[in-house]
Amino acid sequence: MKVDILSLFPRILEGPLSDSIIGKAIDRGLLDVSITNFRDYSADKHHNVDDTIYGGGAGMLLQPQPIVDAFQQTQKIAKKNGIPKGRVILTDPAGKQFNQHIAEELAKEEHLTFICGHYEGFDERIKSIVTDEYSIGNFVLTGGELPALVMIDAVSRLIPGVLGNAQSAPGDSFSDGLLEYPQYTRPADFRGQKVPKILLSGDHQKIADWRLKESLRKTYLKRPEMIDHSKLSKDAKRLLAEVRIEEEKNNNLI
Amino acid sequence: MKVDILSLFPRILEGPLSDSIIGKAIDRGLLDVSITNFRDYSADKHHNVDDTIYGGGAGMLLQPQPIVDAFQQTQKIAKKNGIPKGRVILTDPAGKQFNQHIAEELAKEEHLTFICGHYEGFDERIKSIVTDEYSIGNFVLTGGELPALVMIDAVSRLIPGVLGNAQSAPGDSFSDGLLEYPQYTRPADFRGQKVPKILLSGDHQKIADWRLKESLRKTYLKRPEMIDHSKLSKDAKRLLAEVRIEEEKNNNLI
Repeated sequence: MKVDILSLFPRILEGPLSDSIIGKAIDRGLLDVSITNFRDYSADKHHNVDDTIYGGGAGMLLQPQPIVDAFQQTQKIAKKNGIPKGRVILTDPAGKQFNQHIAEELAKEEHLTFICGHYEGFDERIKSIVTDEYSIGNFVLTGGELPALVMIDAVSRLIPGVLGNAQSAPGDSFSDGLLEYPQYTRPADFRGQKVPKILLSGDHQKIADWRLKESLRKTYLKRPEMIDHSKLSKDAKRLLAEVRIEEEKNNNLI
Repeated sequence: MKVDILSLFPRILEGPLSDSIIGKAIDRGLLDVSITNFRDYSADKHHNVDDTIYGGGAGMLLQPQPIVDAFQQTQKIAKKNGIPKGRVILTDPAGKQFNQHIAEELAKEEHLTFICGHYEGFDERIKSIVTDEYSIGNFVLTGGELPALVMIDAVSRLIPGVLGNAQSAPGDSFSDGLLEYPQYTRPADFRGQKVPKILLSGDHQKIADWRLKESLRKTYLKRPEMIDHSKLSKDAKRLLAEVRIEEEKNNNLI
């Protein structure tokens, strides 16, 4: 997958894109990321990229010219290499909420371009080159680099080959609509905190039941809206009923 | 504010913490960030930090020992410097959804510690040192560094002095419950795309009305659930009614 990032702060992007799983995906040629500083495309003699807001207001807005011209250049290079236009993503707090389903959709694309904002925001006309506007959540950040990195991370790990088998995450949160059960590794006794005995028993059926029940418990306590009763197996429904009784008892004891 | 980050991949963190607004806040002493690689605290002779999962399953889990010992060291240093324990935040997809309200709460703390996960997840007992578990959204990432950076960014910009006045963002999305109105800067005509005439008129009342109406329109079209009718002024209610009629007409014409 080809990823273009248009940003005023390339240094923010370099570390996250060179280390860990994403860095390895780039090394192995599964991901090809280019960062373009759109300040280099400013037609202004001082290389300014922002200006005051029409109609008044504090702060500065990113002008359309540097971003649009930088974008046209990255598209020209892509075309020369036989890469389609793909999706052009603006990181914007007013955009659609990014989620795992969108990550799965984007992972099928051959080319993604991310436009990272800064300062007060964008001139609205920048949206003429944008295909998708996404927000990663209901919070305000200083710039669009971190949201772009978050989306690139979520998308990249879904590209076949990026995650090794050992990391292919069959028990990932969200993948089956329930939160993950509590997990334990060595030592069995860590300074007095012990691993639940059942996990050391070797009884696979009992372990599977315990895990399903604890997944249901965690989801019931933390994110009850995620439980889709119509998708629960008969066993899951029985375990969820047990969880409810246990948790109600717990609450009454407090 | 003192921020401790426990991470296996310090290089991911360095760029985002040294550039742009966060980097400046650190340079100016408003923010003091220390990164601790908890691999350095592994009691294992090979400096391993993860092991297989009790009860079976693919992948590896982070063990409690390296993280807990690294945390105790950062706390010892904080104590020596008169800094309180503060909040200890685990980035976890099963955690509470991080939002602007939580950012505002965390911005009042003197000390935040972020624990960044990797691989399949954590040994449950790591949570014994954790005060808060947050998720930044309903998507799966390769590690906890980006969510930690997102939270640090959202929190830092709220610390007094971090944003200059020009950047203090009175019109930020979410701050008044509505999405931001479209904004424009120079040139007034960008390759045929023109700035709405009203914004060039100099008529402050008309501009204010236009902005409120376009804020309402954007919110109505993109995030209608954000509109709290009980909080709208009489003018805002009238403008929203106009928006509704205009948008219904638009839809009927399609």
